[in-house]
Amino acid sequence: MITAAVLGASGYSGAELLRLLSQRDDVKLTHLVAAASAGKAVHDIYPAFAGVVNEKFEPYEPEKISGTDVVFLALPSGEAMTIVPQLKPHVGHIIDLGGDFRLHSADLYQEFYQHNHSAPQFLAESVYGLPEANEKLISSARLIANPGCYPTSAVLALLPALKMNLISPSGIIINSLSGVSGAGRSSSVDLSFSEVNENIRAYKIGKHQHIPEIQSALELFGGKQVSFSFVPHLVPITRGIYTTIHANLSTSLSRADMMSVYQEFYSDAPFVRIKSEIPQIASVVRTNYCDIYVTAERRTNQLVIVSVIDNLVKGAAGQAIQNMNIMLHLPQQRGLL
Amino acid sequence: MITAAVLGASGYSGAELLRLLSQRDDVKLTHLVAAASAGKAVHDIYPAFAGVVNEKFEPYEPEKISGTDVVFLALPSGEAMTIVPQLKPHVGHIIDLGGDFRLHSADLYQEFYQHNHSAPQFLAESVYGLPEANEKLISSARLIANPGCYPTSAVLALLPALKMNLISPSGIIINSLSGVSGAGRSSSVDLSFSEVNENIRAYKIGKHQHIPEIQSALELFGGKQVSFSFVPHLVPITRGIYTTIHANLSTSLSRADMMSVYQEFYSDAPFVRIKSEIPQIASVVRTNYCDIYVTAERRTNQLVIVSVIDNLVKGAAGQAIQNMNIMLHLPQQRGLL
Amino acid sequence: MITAAVLGASGYSGAELLRLLSQRDDVKLTHLVAAASAGKAVHDIYPAFAGVVNEKFEPYEPEKISGTDVVFLALPSGEAMTIVPQLKPHVGHIIDLGGDFRLHSADLYQEFYQHNHSAPQFLAESVYGLPEANEKLISSARLIANPGCYPTSAVLALLPALKMNLISPSGIIINSLSGVSGAGRSSSVDLSFSEVNENIRAYKIGKHQHIPEIQSALELFGGKQVSFSFVPHLVPITRGIYTTIHANLSTSLSRADMMSVYQEFYSDAPFVRIKSEIPQIASVVRTNYCDIYVTAERRTNQLVIVSVIDNLVKGAAGQAIQNMNIMLHLPQQRGLL
Amino acid sequence: MITAAVLGASGYSGAELLRLLSQRDDVKLTHLVAAASAGKAVHDIYPAFAGVVNEKFEPYEPEKISGTDVVFLALPSGEAMTIVPQLKPHVGHIIDLGGDFRLHSADLYQEFYQHNHSAPQFLAESVYGLPEANEKLISSARLIANPGCYPTSAVLALLPALKMNLISPSGIIINSLSGVSGAGRSSSVDLSFSEVNENIRAYKIGKHQHIPEIQSALELFGGKQVSFSFVPHLVPITRGIYTTIHANLSTSLSRADMMSVYQEFYSDAPFVRIKSEIPQIASVVRTNYCDIYVTAERRTNQLVIVSVIDNLVKGAAGQAIQNMNIMLHLPQQRGLL
Repeated sequence: MITAAVLGASGYSGAELLRLLSQRDDVKLTHLVAAASAGKAVHDIYPAFAGVVNEKFEPYEPEKISGTDVVFLALPSGEAMTIVPQLKPHVGHIIDLGGDFRLHSADLYQEFYQHNHSAPQFLAESVYGLPEANEKLISSARLIANPGCYPTSAVLALLPALKMNLISPSGIIINSLSGVSGAGRSSSVDLSFSEVNENIRAYKIGKHQHIPEIQSALELFGGKQVSFSFVPHLVPITRGIYTTIHANLSTSLSRADMMSVYQEFYSDAPFVRIKSEIPQIASVVRTNYCDIYVTAERRTNQLVIVSVIDNLVKGAAGQAIQNMNIMLHLPQQRGLL
Repeated sequence: MITAAVLGASGYSGAELLRLLSQRDDVKLTHLVAAASAGKAVHDIYPAFAGVVNEKFEPYEPEKISGTDVVFLALPSGEAMTIVPQLKPHVGHIIDLGGDFRLHSADLYQEFYQHNHSAPQFLAESVYGLPEANEKLISSARLIANPGCYPTSAVLALLPALKMNLISPSGIIINSLSGVSGAGRSSSVDLSFSEVNENIRAYKIGKHQHIPEIQSALELFGGKQVSFSFVPHLVPITRGIYTTIHANLSTSLSRADMMSVYQEFYSDAPFVRIKSEIPQIASVVRTNYCDIYVTAERRTNQLVIVSVIDNLVKGAAGQAIQNMNIMLHLPQQRGLL
Repeated sequence: MITAAVLGASGYSGAELLRLLSQRDDVKLTHLVAAASAGKAVHDIYPAFAGVVNEKFEPYEPEKISGTDVVFLALPSGEAMTIVPQLKPHVGHIIDLGGDFRLHSADLYQEFYQHNHSAPQFLAESVYGLPEANEKLISSARLIANPGCYPTSAVLALLPALKMNLISPSGIIINSLSGVSGAGRSSSVDLSFSEVNENIRAYKIGKHQHIPEIQSALELFGGKQVSFSFVPHLVPITRGIYTTIHANLSTSLSRADMMSVYQEFYSDAPFVRIKSEIPQIASVVRTNYCDIYVTAERRTNQLVIVSVIDNLVKGAAGQAIQNMNIMLHLPQQRGLL
Repeated sequence: MITAAVLGASGYSGAELLRLLSQRDDVKLTHLVAAASAGKAVHDIYPAFAGVVNEKFEPYEPEKISGTDVVFLALPSGEAMTIVPQLKPHVGHIIDLGGDFRLHSADLYQEFYQHNHSAPQFLAESVYGLPEANEKLISSARLIANPGCYPTSAVLALLPALKMNLISPSGIIINSLSGVSGAGRSSSVDLSFSEVNENIRAYKIGKHQHIPEIQSALELFGGKQVSFSFVPHLVPITRGIYTTIHANLSTSLSRADMMSVYQEFYSDAPFVRIKSEIPQIASVVRTNYCDIYVTAERRTNQLVIVSVIDNLVKGAAGQAIQNMNIMLHLPQQRGLL
């Protein structure tokens, strides 16, 4: 029996971990840590879990978590860097769903996250948990930086084209639309129903903290320097990321051939589906799938790529479990289909 | 030129007052008070007003407001009772959009609002601003308690039946569905998009502060004691109140005759429309109309009444302006069609 | 291995059956019948099923379905009455998710469904598939009339109060709010996003076809004549039924004691949860749970009951599978948790 | 008094024309033509108009419309080309809100609209009704092709940058998000609430009929050949277009200077607001404004432009009225603020 702890269990990614992990009979959830809700039953915060998850949230007591096989960190930005140094020597594996260990440069971290990194010594050893690109390193990792939701959708969409030289590595344009749960379970006028409903807004143009993450992942796995612009938008849906990408074509392959390149590239990836029709969010909601579509626009010499994921599953909790499965040498689909 | 001030101008009711009043050329908005946003331009908070309302929010300085013809209070619960004693001697008319002066008993206030009333001396002289029932007193009032959104929809729906003896005054069941803007422009996990979207919940069953208000309005204008149950629900729309009422029939009038009773009752009311089809929210959004439908269910001897309003217009800012018009002896529709 | 066929597999209830049944390894989906989509792959209509359900829709050919263990009918109103006479002699069990066999009187059927019943000889032998009230008959049935979504939420909410004499059987008021998927996968201006979004409307007041179904179920299982009014409303959510009920109290039991009555009543029912807090739709979406809340309003002598379900699960496909499990003498939760 | 007729008055653009025109006391709506709804009162289809617009829809009888000052055509694609030859000699001005007369080449029309143009003789004389770029020709026009919603948002966003040489005219990427009302008041499974809600999908990539319209408008008013890619997306809002554009910078101007270029360019345009913050849809809903934001991303040498409009106002009915005002030599804001 695998023992698992979730820190930050009361947030949306935490709750999604509970939903997915509680369905497994080979995993035992031993600790559900949520400081602000400690002492409350899980179903007090999430009534959907009544009769399903009977545990209580508990405070963070590192000595209790000691010995746990897998610790999931689903914490606000900046908290994992305090926790990891405490827990790492005493637990089997840590999977951080936040951004604290995704960049390998503390300076870059500071520039985009706007505060100091307090545990830079762990940046080098953390492994970027994008299974479709990094399975080998993940399988022997003990600290996983689970990718961000935007980077997951953008990197999976671009990697085949980049690596197989279908596109120029510069001049890439990434537009992404995100559901509101991506902003977490938080109180803010900007995220209130009355402000979000019947509204759309782009935000953090050129400044989003996922920009260096996308860049480093594309360069690490694509093997070449890239240059891209990224504009995220908030749209009135609860779950989902819709990413539309333009890149300059550097091939004369037919659309069918490009689809074949993509299919081949992901032939071993159970959660990537190459689609012949333009994808929609509804097809991937509550699943760990990433649906990808490619088409060439000869008039403008552009490759247009569309990719969709559920930000809380493939963009967070599902991918974290996929990483756990790989680290524990289990089939990566277990508990995710 | 009528001078008008809005206190609490940065909330949703306040913004709706600005939207409606800024279209009038006989009203000059002299003071837009919003403590937390003082110094900011209105369009910094509400970009829709760029080029339309150019004023800034200002702090509350009572002496500056002195001499204003009409002061609208669109404040959080409990704040108007501090302001009214200060301003009343020095301004023409006060219209309070909140609940501080709607009940004539300080004890009842304390029971349902759960805090003490600090200005009970004004309770007796405040006039309940439901123009369709109280126009005469409104026309000579200097302090108006503008009705709540739920009471507006429920009382307008029930008054004709009650007063014309179509129904028994006891055993009335009122179910109301409210858009989220009714909860104000506030930050709260419960009002966040991710919690409200694709969700419905009833709340404050038997405890809502509008219960004594509905009761006193029905009894005052209906002329008899009433007994009713009221259940409010939060639904994922931004604006609108949908109220469905059941009451025991005490007439054998046909449906057509009951519609005539309603039409006659409201023959002088420009904002009440008696409908032959079941109403929908979309028909009244951004208008000051209340659409009402009545039908008899002979099988169960029930009168079923449906009424819809926009909670921010007929349920708040629009009705406030209607009251202003009446107090200033202007046509009550001015600026509201 | 249980063989199962779904007729009407391309509608929302059909698709929900596929979603739930495809997760089971003891059930083999042998026929997915959808006349209008015959020949298309399931994932052509529902891209979410790509890689999950690989079958194609097929035309209705009764001889092929012969010998199937369980046939689910998820058809437009009036079609099951043509199919059942053809299939019943040749298959193990039929579960009709529509309304054709829910009423035991062909006259009543005609009155509320507005057309003739062409197979009245099956009305007597069909068993009303509400497991929490009718498990014994279900367990030996061969033709199940799966309850409607509104009746499921209303009857489960009322039965304990009715049977344990907490309320008067007359003067009951049922208000229900339904998500749009309840209207099926159909093209209609009235169901288009632009008409439904930011809108609410009641419909079919006093005429809804679920009225006689609720009545007969309450009387059959409650053991006494009842009288109630029912008003359904369409609200802008995709899934879910929210039912709020008022009934005249005939007990002086405390709220805690009434909750105990409900808990006891449903002590063997794995899918009914008696809640201490007011339920919300989000807690039951995509589950087979019915969450129920009871509270007494002494001021008006009313019992207020709230119940919530997912109309496509407990209100359709989930309950159908629960019925299949019972008929096949499997644990009723199998495949539903 | 200006006499006006609306053909296609029962669609969303038609209803928006009624909403806006019925507020004017210098315009008399003499004919509301809606073939399928002829004989019904306007408020039978749009209950919101009860008490506001009392007219009935009428069938199309050209001889009755003869002599009307302004005829608005808000018809399904392909119908205006039948009507214009009949009416043009007999009425003052025609404003076509559809796409029949926006392209000056019948071949291009056929390629993108996929059917023959039956009145190509009117293509040359029709004037593209984008007032901010074409006021002079509009002021003397008799046949206006009112721009499409996507082109309005894209062309207004790009023109200053293109004309003032801030960007390269090739390699432009236009991503647009549209509310559902843009698809008209029609019945279709794809537009049903259950399919659109909680969903997003791109469509017609590289094939949308607005591509040649954007191209010809940019080239006509920008004075140079352009090359761009355009991807439209359907998002779950009722009204609004959100357009995000990337283009290769060809200037080293600061962001402030570029804003000044835009402000200057639109200094005479009352409905264009150049914003210092990223725009949102909610700011322009139910207004004729187009809000535009520009920012430079030096890292990638891209100009990023965001523009938002209400597709039914600035993208349809509002702009049509703005064109009417200009043709009739009235202030262009009349009835639109």
